[in-house]
Amino acid sequence: MRARLLALVTTALLLAPGARAADDDKDVRAVLEAQVVAWNKGDLDGFMAGYWNSEKLSFISGGTITSGWKATKERYEKRYKGEGKEMGKLTFSELHVEVLSPTAAMLRGQFEVAFEKEKDEKKKLARGRFTLILKKFPDGWKITHDHTSAEAVK
Amino acid sequence: MRARLLALVTTALLLAPGARAADDDKDVRAVLEAQVVAWNKGDLDGFMAGYWNSEKLSFISGGTITSGWKATKERYEKRYKGEGKEMGKLTFSELHVEVLSPTAAMLRGQFEVAFEKEKDEKKKLARGRFTLILKKFPDGWKITHDHTSAEAVK
Repeated sequence: MRARLLALVTTALLLAPGARAADDDKDVRAVLEAQVVAWNKGDLDGFMAGYWNSEKLSFISGGTITSGWKATKERYEKRYKGEGKEMGKLTFSELHVEVLSPTAAMLRGQFEVAFEKEKDEKKKLARGRFTLILKKFPDGWKITHDHTSAEAVK
Repeated sequence: MRARLLALVTTALLLAPGARAADDDKDVRAVLEAQVVAWNKGDLDGFMAGYWNSEKLSFISGGTITSGWKATKERYEKRYKGEGKEMGKLTFSELHVEVLSPTAAMLRGQFEVAFEKEKDEKKKLARGRFTLILKKFPDGWKITHDHTSAEAVK
């Protein structure tokens, strides 16, 4: 019995890191799933909850950098909540997660935003790629760095 | 003597992770420093040595993804080694390293490429931002993921 118990404990210990990484993978994806749900309800605050609420959050888009959660939120407000703007329908695809440590992960993927009210056919769909760094905090995984680049409009 | 030795060993063990992270920071930056030197000698092979030589290397630019070291090299060749092209003078600035684990790091920064032979004033300088993931292999740190975005030409 003792040998079997030892074998069980050893197996559990050996499997633990793998099981944890699988949980982390799932938890990291859940951050983006929650962001999509929030975005498509027009809930920018809910979307922003996926980002680290810190001055140290960094957001790169179009070759320029925005520093801090507040400035990042203002950037989104200006682009998607301003007069004549719409948030559109957001979808993510081709998501690829790499858990880099028990508290850090990289997530890259493709985004599409469909603008229903847009009259210009060329601007009805925005598409591009993003690379995120996420870190695990006491209240869960948060995006600490976002590098997004849109495809050029054809 | 024994107590002092114990204290010394304990101190060394406590300091080790910090010292290692500082070394990693330096080693990660050295990858980019070597890339700049190679690029500015027109040595694309030397530049490419900073990237993980794997099918799993990922390179995102302009909202699209290139997969694998070979395809990434071909992309660079087409853009900078083709007829009438020049590699130009590369500089990196505003480098920010985050060591995420003993074998993973994130590095973000700004790049500029000055094209001396370019006649069009607007195209004489390309500038943008990049986010890199680097991993530590037996032969040192290598870039495993590169997300680069250029500023729009004014």
